[in-house]
Amino acid sequence: MIKSRRILGIDPGLRHTGWGVIAQQDNRLSFIAAGRINPDAGFPMALRLLALAEGLADIVRLYAPDEAAIEETFVNKNARSALLLGQARGSAMLALAQNGLTVAEYAANRIKQSVTGHGHADKIQIQAMIAILLPGSGKLAADAADALAVAITHAHHAC
Amino acid sequence: MIKSRRILGIDPGLRHTGWGVIAQQDNRLSFIAAGRINPDAGFPMALRLLALAEGLADIVRLYAPDEAAIEETFVNKNARSALLLGQARGSAMLALAQNGLTVAEYAANRIKQSVTGHGHADKIQIQAMIAILLPGSGKLAADAADALAVAITHAHHAC
Repeated sequence: MIKSRRILGIDPGLRHTGWGVIAQQDNRLSFIAAGRINPDAGFPMALRLLALAEGLADIVRLYAPDEAAIEETFVNKNARSALLLGQARGSAMLALAQNGLTVAEYAANRIKQSVTGHGHADKIQIQAMIAILLPGSGKLAADAADALAVAITHAHHAC
Repeated sequence: MIKSRRILGIDPGLRHTGWGVIAQQDNRLSFIAAGRINPDAGFPMALRLLALAEGLADIVRLYAPDEAAIEETFVNKNARSALLLGQARGSAMLALAQNGLTVAEYAANRIKQSVTGHGHADKIQIQAMIAILLPGSGKLAADAADALAVAITHAHHAC
C-alpha cells in the first residue's frame, strides 16, 4: 500500500543521460523535474563517467527520490556501441546505489506498454503521452521524456 | 623523469575483476599485491556494481596507488555481453576516478607487446612472463595476471 513516494527514472547514455523525477500519491502521479546530463565528450572516459555520476548525485540531493528505475536496455547495435552504452549505464546504476537508492530495471516494451498502452510505441508517442500524464512537464528532450516513462512504469508496477 | 610511483592495473569483468599493484622505482618494477574482486552474481545489478566499486576503493585505500590503468577492451562478443562488460568496466573506471586516480587505457595488443614482446601472446604466456617480471607474485588467476600486465604497460609507456 503506497502512500507517497518520489521516483527517479533514468535513460542512460554516454553523451546524454535523461532523468526525470515524479511524485506518487496513491494512484496520482505528478511531475517534479526532468532534464539531461551531458558529460563533455572531450574528457577522458573516466572523467565523463565521473561527470555523469556527480550529475546524478546532485539530482538525488536536490529532489530526494525514494527509489530509482532504469530501462533494461535493448541492445540492437554493434558490440562496440553496446560496450560504451554499458559503461554509462553501469556508472549511472552505481551512482544511484552509492546514493542509497534501489534501482529497478524494466524492459523497453514494458515501459512503452505502461505509458502508451502498447509495446511498440515510438518516441513521439511517448513524448505525447508524458505531456498528458504529467501536466506541467512542458516540452522535453526525448531522453528526458523516456526517463519519466521509466519512472511512471515503476510507479505502476512496484509497491 | 620518474622517481617512484605505484600503479594499479585493472582487468574488469562483472563476475571477476582482476587487479594488481606494482611499484616503479626508475626502471625497476616490483610486485606489491594482486587479486580479484568477485561480486555476488545473485545480487541485483546495481549492488553487484557497488560491490565492485567498494572493492576497488578498499584496494586504493590499502595500497595507495598513484595512477591506474585499464585494458581498452577488445569486443569480439555479442552486443549483450558487451553491454554487461561495459557496465563493469564503466563502474571500475568511475570508482577509480572517484578515488582521485587518473585512468589510462591501453589496447590489448599493446599490453601483450609490452609484457611478452609480441602482440598476439596468449594468457599462459602472459602469466609466465608476469612470474618472471614480478618475482614474488606467485601463482595468479589469469585476470589478476592480466591486471599486472596492464600496470606494467603503464610503467613502460607513461611518464
